[in-house]
Amino acid sequence: MSNPSTYSPGVALIGTGFMGKCHAMAWNNVATAYGVARPRLEILCDVSAAEAETNAAAFGFARPARDWRAVIEDPAVDVVSITTPNGLHRPMAEAALEAGKHVWLEKPMALTLEDAEAMADLARSRPDQVTMLGYNYLRSPAFRAAQAMIASGEIGTPHTFRGVYDEDYNADPGLPWSWRMTHQQGGLGALGDLGCHLVSHLLALMGPVQEVTAMTAVAIPERLSDDGPRAVENEDSALALLRFASGAQGSFATSRVARGRKCRLQWEVHGSDGSIVFDQENMNELWVHRTGDAGFTRHLTGPEQPEFAAFCPAPGHNFGFNEQKVVEARDLLAAIAGGPNVGPDFEAGLQIERIIHAMAASNGRPVTLGVNI
Amino acid sequence: MSNPSTYSPGVALIGTGFMGKCHAMAWNNVATAYGVARPRLEILCDVSAAEAETNAAAFGFARPARDWRAVIEDPAVDVVSITTPNGLHRPMAEAALEAGKHVWLEKPMALTLEDAEAMADLARSRPDQVTMLGYNYLRSPAFRAAQAMIASGEIGTPHTFRGVYDEDYNADPGLPWSWRMTHQQGGLGALGDLGCHLVSHLLALMGPVQEVTAMTAVAIPERLSDDGPRAVENEDSALALLRFASGAQGSFATSRVARGRKCRLQWEVHGSDGSIVFDQENMNELWVHRTGDAGFTRHLTGPEQPEFAAFCPAPGHNFGFNEQKVVEARDLLAAIAGGPNVGPDFEAGLQIERIIHAMAASNGRPVTLGVNI
Amino acid sequence: MSNPSTYSPGVALIGTGFMGKCHAMAWNNVATAYGVARPRLEILCDVSAAEAETNAAAFGFARPARDWRAVIEDPAVDVVSITTPNGLHRPMAEAALEAGKHVWLEKPMALTLEDAEAMADLARSRPDQVTMLGYNYLRSPAFRAAQAMIASGEIGTPHTFRGVYDEDYNADPGLPWSWRMTHQQGGLGALGDLGCHLVSHLLALMGPVQEVTAMTAVAIPERLSDDGPRAVENEDSALALLRFASGAQGSFATSRVARGRKCRLQWEVHGSDGSIVFDQENMNELWVHRTGDAGFTRHLTGPEQPEFAAFCPAPGHNFGFNEQKVVEARDLLAAIAGGPNVGPDFEAGLQIERIIHAMAASNGRPVTLGVNI
Amino acid sequence: MSNPSTYSPGVALIGTGFMGKCHAMAWNNVATAYGVARPRLEILCDVSAAEAETNAAAFGFARPARDWRAVIEDPAVDVVSITTPNGLHRPMAEAALEAGKHVWLEKPMALTLEDAEAMADLARSRPDQVTMLGYNYLRSPAFRAAQAMIASGEIGTPHTFRGVYDEDYNADPGLPWSWRMTHQQGGLGALGDLGCHLVSHLLALMGPVQEVTAMTAVAIPERLSDDGPRAVENEDSALALLRFASGAQGSFATSRVARGRKCRLQWEVHGSDGSIVFDQENMNELWVHRTGDAGFTRHLTGPEQPEFAAFCPAPGHNFGFNEQKVVEARDLLAAIAGGPNVGPDFEAGLQIERIIHAMAASNGRPVTLGVNI
Repeated sequence: MSNPSTYSPGVALIGTGFMGKCHAMAWNNVATAYGVARPRLEILCDVSAAEAETNAAAFGFARPARDWRAVIEDPAVDVVSITTPNGLHRPMAEAALEAGKHVWLEKPMALTLEDAEAMADLARSRPDQVTMLGYNYLRSPAFRAAQAMIASGEIGTPHTFRGVYDEDYNADPGLPWSWRMTHQQGGLGALGDLGCHLVSHLLALMGPVQEVTAMTAVAIPERLSDDGPRAVENEDSALALLRFASGAQGSFATSRVARGRKCRLQWEVHGSDGSIVFDQENMNELWVHRTGDAGFTRHLTGPEQPEFAAFCPAPGHNFGFNEQKVVEARDLLAAIAGGPNVGPDFEAGLQIERIIHAMAASNGRPVTLGVNI
Repeated sequence: MSNPSTYSPGVALIGTGFMGKCHAMAWNNVATAYGVARPRLEILCDVSAAEAETNAAAFGFARPARDWRAVIEDPAVDVVSITTPNGLHRPMAEAALEAGKHVWLEKPMALTLEDAEAMADLARSRPDQVTMLGYNYLRSPAFRAAQAMIASGEIGTPHTFRGVYDEDYNADPGLPWSWRMTHQQGGLGALGDLGCHLVSHLLALMGPVQEVTAMTAVAIPERLSDDGPRAVENEDSALALLRFASGAQGSFATSRVARGRKCRLQWEVHGSDGSIVFDQENMNELWVHRTGDAGFTRHLTGPEQPEFAAFCPAPGHNFGFNEQKVVEARDLLAAIAGGPNVGPDFEAGLQIERIIHAMAASNGRPVTLGVNI
Repeated sequence: MSNPSTYSPGVALIGTGFMGKCHAMAWNNVATAYGVARPRLEILCDVSAAEAETNAAAFGFARPARDWRAVIEDPAVDVVSITTPNGLHRPMAEAALEAGKHVWLEKPMALTLEDAEAMADLARSRPDQVTMLGYNYLRSPAFRAAQAMIASGEIGTPHTFRGVYDEDYNADPGLPWSWRMTHQQGGLGALGDLGCHLVSHLLALMGPVQEVTAMTAVAIPERLSDDGPRAVENEDSALALLRFASGAQGSFATSRVARGRKCRLQWEVHGSDGSIVFDQENMNELWVHRTGDAGFTRHLTGPEQPEFAAFCPAPGHNFGFNEQKVVEARDLLAAIAGGPNVGPDFEAGLQIERIIHAMAASNGRPVTLGVNI
Repeated sequence: MSNPSTYSPGVALIGTGFMGKCHAMAWNNVATAYGVARPRLEILCDVSAAEAETNAAAFGFARPARDWRAVIEDPAVDVVSITTPNGLHRPMAEAALEAGKHVWLEKPMALTLEDAEAMADLARSRPDQVTMLGYNYLRSPAFRAAQAMIASGEIGTPHTFRGVYDEDYNADPGLPWSWRMTHQQGGLGALGDLGCHLVSHLLALMGPVQEVTAMTAVAIPERLSDDGPRAVENEDSALALLRFASGAQGSFATSRVARGRKCRLQWEVHGSDGSIVFDQENMNELWVHRTGDAGFTRHLTGPEQPEFAAFCPAPGHNFGFNEQKVVEARDLLAAIAGGPNVGPDFEAGLQIERIIHAMAASNGRPVTLGVNI
């Protein structure tokens, strides 16, 4: 077990888009925030040589690169951040694992359940390498405070979960057809982009899911491609009922066509002694009611929450979306240094994939999830 | 067809509890608010002679009475307000209809679906008598504004409905066992008390429901009676998926054990061109987003809404829960005077009952609702 | 001292506009809500005979009338509701007092401070007659709960008050000039319409005001009349600093040109052990923080608040603006029956007038209020 | 004029506390976020050698140091971040300017107005060196969007400002006496800590202030020191009226004893054609009403705002408090590279100091600010 305050792993980052930049900011700030050893930022890789070169300089990486296979093999690299399109997740993650590297992979794990299973199998066979999936919404101070409250029994026994994750990035019918809307290249739609985050939350709050019953819909069934109108294959929205292994019940909903919603990962948990409500669009607030309280109380994030304290000693000074990724980087580094992996690793990620694929396949009928979930 | 501004029906009110008083306030103010002829408040009936006498004086009724059958037969009475426990709904409503009277009945219609069917049959056979059910949440200015927005296409085609109705009146495990928690005397639990209101909303917003798939739960399975612990039979909470005849999909949830919720009849509708969000705990607000808007806009109730204007010319001066009942009284009087009955009459109420009973019986399997729904 | 549950005073109501109708609804429902004896609704008076006749029937008054002087003299009348334009307040109130009647008068008391002083003098000379001013915002369950919290020390010693009352009814520059915008006929502007309500709140919460320093502004200095552009004389907005007799400090603001505000009577009180926040646009909520709380808690109105319980036994079922007036009617009847007058009577109303007139005259300099305030 | 995408200044950071760490995170991420050249992080300076050493490694600085005078003289250093206690601001800033360095200084500028004037004088004499004050709340995407809306006339002519900045860090009477509560060592109290931020906002939104009239208070006049009870000298709270040079009027309030408030920098601007409302505790929202809108619309931050886009392409993914400082670093680097200095530089900072010192001295009387404000 390495000492996280002195061990400095070499990092390669593949991808420089939305999540690539987010990983870069995390790699740059994890030591500042947490006082761990600064990771060595070795290689920034992008399909575009120009992007790789410009961004390597800006993001603080020592070298740019175009060939991801060479990057993964590079002996200076200990851990690989993979932030490329979903179809590349499996080959890159497998190559990195086979090269003996730790893997930090953006969600969703893969396009298909078979891919995810193969990846989890490989990871299982290499227990000394850390895998970590980019479920950043699990990292915020408010979410962790909610988790801790439920775990410690502050709202008694949780019996009901209700959650949604809605955005509207696909709501415009004028948006042209894209390969992202096919099963083969895009995989699941809203379930893969958004729903998996909600599943990560509900598992962390309520424990394993035993059964799902779901309906999906394509709100805009056809869009214009260069070759004329083409069908949208993957779901714009989904709704589901849940039975948890604990006996609790739940509802689940996601949509990429919910006009006006931007990052509404919102849920509530009802327990025998209280309720908690959260909405990622106001990610610095938890609304909590406990038996005897006059109503719901707004808990604003503050330094009594460990993930907040790493960034700021003053309450009410809003924690940001990108800082979630810094927490994730710290979680990863802690696992690499030999501490427990809070995950989700590929094993846990596979359980999330099983649930969203079960929803996609349910068509209104109950689907029982495997025993090991 | 009578003229509502001159025809003054004779009224009997049975029951002086929560809803009895609410009906009384409505009967007293409907003419003031709407300028219709003042109804004649003839008889106030209660099982307790003392209550009947005291309240008749306070509520402005000419006479107190104890015998509801005599009240219903009284020739001075044209319309009967029934606000008694649910088990009395059927006999009283049937007697009133058979006596040729108009009927204003609190929800839910009856304890069982069979009762509701019999009542609807009888009402159908007497088309000149008006029946009206106490779905007061259909009457608020904000709700009617939402209905009008959807009907006029302001948010395009509605494709998704998500709604809940939560309270916490049964959350305390120390609450003793009561006959209200049995199927025979209490009928459905949260579905009958709360869920039926949510169904009234979703039907009014989205049109007929074709299929429901539901799960129910009893959070506190046993409570203390005078004879020791006894089982709670009817549901504390329910969750459901909905398919609408329009092709839209939806989710439904209700709970009487949702700690901290007091009157949370809350829903959102997603349409192709916008979204609307409502919460009865803030019943004077609608949150509306339309394509192109920068976000959700808070629409505060005001005199541009007809039901608001009847009570107040100044925007933002909150409309109250009890005023919903005044609107309901006006709707009833308009139907009695020969205008259209906006309902829900017994026919429409039966459809609501069919849906909540289908939910109660679903046990996780899809239940198709009849064609005439 | 009469018994309020049996003494039934005869009522005359003058005026059938916004506030006239509001008084009518209150007179009709006060007995239903509170179980007091039903007042006798004797005469409805309006300058328009047609309005008087139509509304007398609708509002439940025995007779219509046009001549307010005769109405006030009528021996069947014990109490007079005055809801006419501000310029008529003094003559009507004085006539009613001189005729030996109790007086329920809408705010503001009068156009000028001199008028208000004369009215208070007369009322003082007739201690057996009750005067009550229409400060309805003092009556809501949430406001009274706030008052009780502060009085009982729940937030410790209150040291800071900050309040606003904003609407936007005068914000449109296209609105034509009106006599309401002159000093002689309209009196004060926003201070008279809105600011006096805020003063009623701050006095009830914080006690007497010792000194005010204020600035006023006319946002739209000229408007179009039939005779061309004319100057707006009275203030569109005002801002003030306050010193309370208790040593606490405060700020005050009001505007009739605050775009988007409809009934924003909003304030916060900071005490040594907590804070309370209120906004009349959400009049069923109080936001309370007490030392040790995790944040602000939303207190939703409910039956633990006496004024709520009179109308509804179920928490979260919103109390409405018009119901405030029913509470006011009850307060008036209680005083008429010989109980304490919670006011504001003409004496207390005069103190409110002194404060808003001091603000109007301050022009940025401190004005000390009289010792007896 | 240097090219900000290639010029890489050498940085020294003095102080490793709350703001020291915040500057460090900004220095580490400014290039990643904005694509400018990465600054050279040369020296981290702290009075504690141990803190300096540990943090230099974690924060990514090349060398630790204890002697701030040597640091400032170091030829590798082009710009100095000063995040030390207020009493050190003047000597450090002056030394840095005299050494030819650019200065990034935390607010408030200095303990006394005389100090601030001297510092501004020195800065004025060295026009080639950039000074920048740490008014980070000026940098958030939502604030800049509000500024732009007002500047472009989206709400017409702004006529009224009302703002507060409240926290409760001094509310506990059990908090011991500290030198921060004296004038000599602590300077102003809430005005210096919090009020100056609010002044930075109101100047940016409304333009110069011509006159202030203020009252201050010490809520807890005495606290326990090691030598027994001692007086608290500087203000716990302040309230003020404002006259702007534009003719607009305003109110101002600040408190460090406002129970339950954590970072409530909240204001509203009323214009002839709309209103804008902001609260730093929900820094990702603006509430905007424009003439004709149905109500206030919640504008959630998103990539249409330039400062947001630098960090994230997805709307609703919350911008954080610390990212404001990254924007500030970018503003500073742009000025160092020869672009315009958006400030506040020492000149602009002096105007802020003049206003808060005028408030501190007002004692309820109007104070006219100098012509050059």
